[in-house]
Amino acid sequence: MGEASKMVSVEEALETVLRVAQRLPPVTVPIHQALGKVLAQDVAAPDPLPPYPASIKDGYAVVASDGPGEYPVITESRAGNDGIDVKVTPGTIAYVTTGGPIPDGADAVVQVEDTIPVESADPKRVRILKQVAQGLDIRPVGCDIAKGDVILKLGERLGAAEIGLLATAGVLAVKVYPTPKIAVLSTGDELVEPTNESLERGQIRDSNRAMILAAAVQQQCEVLDLGIAHDDEKEIEGILDRAFSSGIDILLTSGGVSMGDRDFVKPLLEKKGRVYFHKVCMKPGKPLTFAEILPGSTEDGADTKILAFGLPGNPVSCLVCFHLFLVPTIRHLSGWAHPHLPRVHARLKKSIMADRVRPEFHRATVRWESNGGTDILGFVAESTGNQISSRLLSMKSANALLEVPPTGNLIPAGTYVVAIIISDLIGFTGTSNFPSSIPVN
Amino acid sequence: MGEASKMVSVEEALETVLRVAQRLPPVTVPIHQALGKVLAQDVAAPDPLPPYPASIKDGYAVVASDGPGEYPVITESRAGNDGIDVKVTPGTIAYVTTGGPIPDGADAVVQVEDTIPVESADPKRVRILKQVAQGLDIRPVGCDIAKGDVILKLGERLGAAEIGLLATAGVLAVKVYPTPKIAVLSTGDELVEPTNESLERGQIRDSNRAMILAAAVQQQCEVLDLGIAHDDEKEIEGILDRAFSSGIDILLTSGGVSMGDRDFVKPLLEKKGRVYFHKVCMKPGKPLTFAEILPGSTEDGADTKILAFGLPGNPVSCLVCFHLFLVPTIRHLSGWAHPHLPRVHARLKKSIMADRVRPEFHRATVRWESNGGTDILGFVAESTGNQISSRLLSMKSANALLEVPPTGNLIPAGTYVVAIIISDLIGFTGTSNFPSSIPVN
Ligand SMILES: [Mg+2]
Ligand SMILES: [Mg+2]
Repeated sequence: MGEASKMVSVEEALETVLRVAQRLPPVTVPIHQALGKVLAQDVAAPDPLPPYPASIKDGYAVVASDGPGEYPVITESRAGNDGIDVKVTPGTIAYVTTGGPIPDGADAVVQVEDTIPVESADPKRVRILKQVAQGLDIRPVGCDIAKGDVILKLGERLGAAEIGLLATAGVLAVKVYPTPKIAVLSTGDELVEPTNESLERGQIRDSNRAMILAAAVQQQCEVLDLGIAHDDEKEIEGILDRAFSSGIDILLTSGGVSMGDRDFVKPLLEKKGRVYFHKVCMKPGKPLTFAEILPGSTEDGADTKILAFGLPGNPVSCLVCFHLFLVPTIRHLSGWAHPHLPRVHARLKKSIMADRVRPEFHRATVRWESNGGTDILGFVAESTGNQISSRLLSMKSANALLEVPPTGNLIPAGTYVVAIIISDLIGFTGTSNFPSSIPVN
Repeated sequence: MGEASKMVSVEEALETVLRVAQRLPPVTVPIHQALGKVLAQDVAAPDPLPPYPASIKDGYAVVASDGPGEYPVITESRAGNDGIDVKVTPGTIAYVTTGGPIPDGADAVVQVEDTIPVESADPKRVRILKQVAQGLDIRPVGCDIAKGDVILKLGERLGAAEIGLLATAGVLAVKVYPTPKIAVLSTGDELVEPTNESLERGQIRDSNRAMILAAAVQQQCEVLDLGIAHDDEKEIEGILDRAFSSGIDILLTSGGVSMGDRDFVKPLLEKKGRVYFHKVCMKPGKPLTFAEILPGSTEDGADTKILAFGLPGNPVSCLVCFHLFLVPTIRHLSGWAHPHLPRVHARLKKSIMADRVRPEFHRATVRWESNGGTDILGFVAESTGNQISSRLLSMKSANALLEVPPTGNLIPAGTYVVAIIISDLIGFTGTSNFPSSIPVN
């Protein structure tokens, strides 16, 4: 366990976790359950799209060389079998609607706006007002998707457009990487359920569990609430053993990882599996234990590997560690090719003080600012205030963690820092300043 | 209906929709159902946090003025009632753990790393190695949250940190704005269910419904699948009537809004309520009908207002209209103070051609780029290729819609354009380039 005794850097720690973590085995799910998941297969189109030459407009299918003039409407082709046995020959036209099949013989569409119906003509006649080019307003067979094209690839994540593509291809069940099942436990004799209306001396309500369960749900995980454990070795061990044999992929505990004589989480994880590190050089969040619970060490001998994280008890440290370590881990297990949180650069609105020893992840609100000139386009970062790790209010409304290197210096306003985006982006204000807003480089 | 006959701009159209749309009446939900919702009440802290002076470290509570030396450990205060009747007097110390209460009389904490236990002393004695200042490593009562502080305000959106704050305050049920219930209908004689393995002449599989249902689920909406309707006025009317009396807030149809003689959606919405517009000057997506179905026009006479959108049948137009109009509408109904999609500026990677008449919403992948120099920090936008509105592949992997003004000109590579972010942000690559990456302005 020599590897585990030293304080590791955030980068080393994350690299270790992502090396130990493995993609979960793919499962096949109906497409309405596939939203947000990563594909574990390629998907090819069984048919071309459109499967027939299709009209782009409501109007008349014509022989383009006929040109303007008055023509009899020999059929109406809207969809399905409309006009299947009718051929548009020179001197005739056919009514077509958007998306409808172009009858044989026709080679262009004149939109309805460029035509006038001939009144009381029976059979129906229409005056074509415009000369159109061959092929106008016709989508040829396969112009959007050729038959056999791979339209979605293994590793792509399924959003709404991708779900639409699956439906287009007639794929109703699809192989995806599942998201992990996560169990969450709070530890500490000081903790009581949030249901407690009044607190006795030395008690606080457990906020970490509800918070971390919510954070896991935001990452689309299935969650298991393990409740609160006292600082009691046997009690915690019993809960861990039951959790490890309940089919979970990740165990998250909070508390019990400091230097106290009743901090049992790390020793228990050492007993149950392999601890890779238990201290990460970061602020907030230094005490963070990561262990792999090995196959066969569980009661039912299942050979799934469980990743266990002993998160710090301070609520801010706990949530910052969740963002920095658990979000990439969950995404990695769920098949994301790029599991890391997105990083951008942002200009400090006000100066901030750097720690002398540990890199800090300073909670901030980052928003896009622009006064119209290209020279000041960009993200601006504003601190959420007092950064003490017990002050959960510093995470409220934070959409970014600013990476502050441990120089011990004041970082002046206007400096660019790296911002790790952890929540919704904030754009510039106003609905649109279109079209005048487009500054040219 | 004079208002409805003209082609409106995107800004006018969105302004109209958001003026007609109203926040849904608040509901009270348990906190695990409140994630992602907007608060409809203020939340105050019933207790200070910490509720007692609490230790920041594992170590010893001391009388600071005593200074270094060997002291008897008179009690151990970890949590709850530990050491309740014991007072730390000059010349004595108490063991404390992180988060535990500081016993009366003590005024500082010496962390365990700055102490040495005196071996085989009984009762226990410890050598304090360091002089500490009064107040060191103690969080006074209420230093994180003062009693009665409003910790969450009406209008704030509940993420994981906010759920943690609710738990801290002992709030288990909370008043929030619900998300709307949305019904989705596809129309068109050409459409068949995606279950159809082979297509007959003139048929295509319905992709819009699965896509729009997924997009609504992504916005946390409850959804109702109305299936496919033929281009048959009576059939569509029956489906709309049933939908309008089923407690929905929003009806979305796709198809049936063009100039065809069997496009029944707009006339039916005119019959059922008030149509505000049916053509929006945009590319893709021009035919877009918006109507308000008025109270009393529903069978059960409920006075909830229903917003009905006749979306275009082309899948790209349909999804672009969803992003531009439905996402802000859903957020407005759900109580968001700023319902608009975030807008940033991005530099074009390659030139693109602007339409001459209609503003275009060009699908693109936008990512943060940086080669280390501050001069080229920023978002770069890359087109997803052929932008024909039937080509759903142009929405695949698109995380932004670029606003392209209708100049008819080529917009050269390097030009800054407004990018509307519709999906996950892509940051610069690498996990972290910390600390050397921090460029200074
Ligand atoms: Mg503890
Ligand atoms: Mg149609």
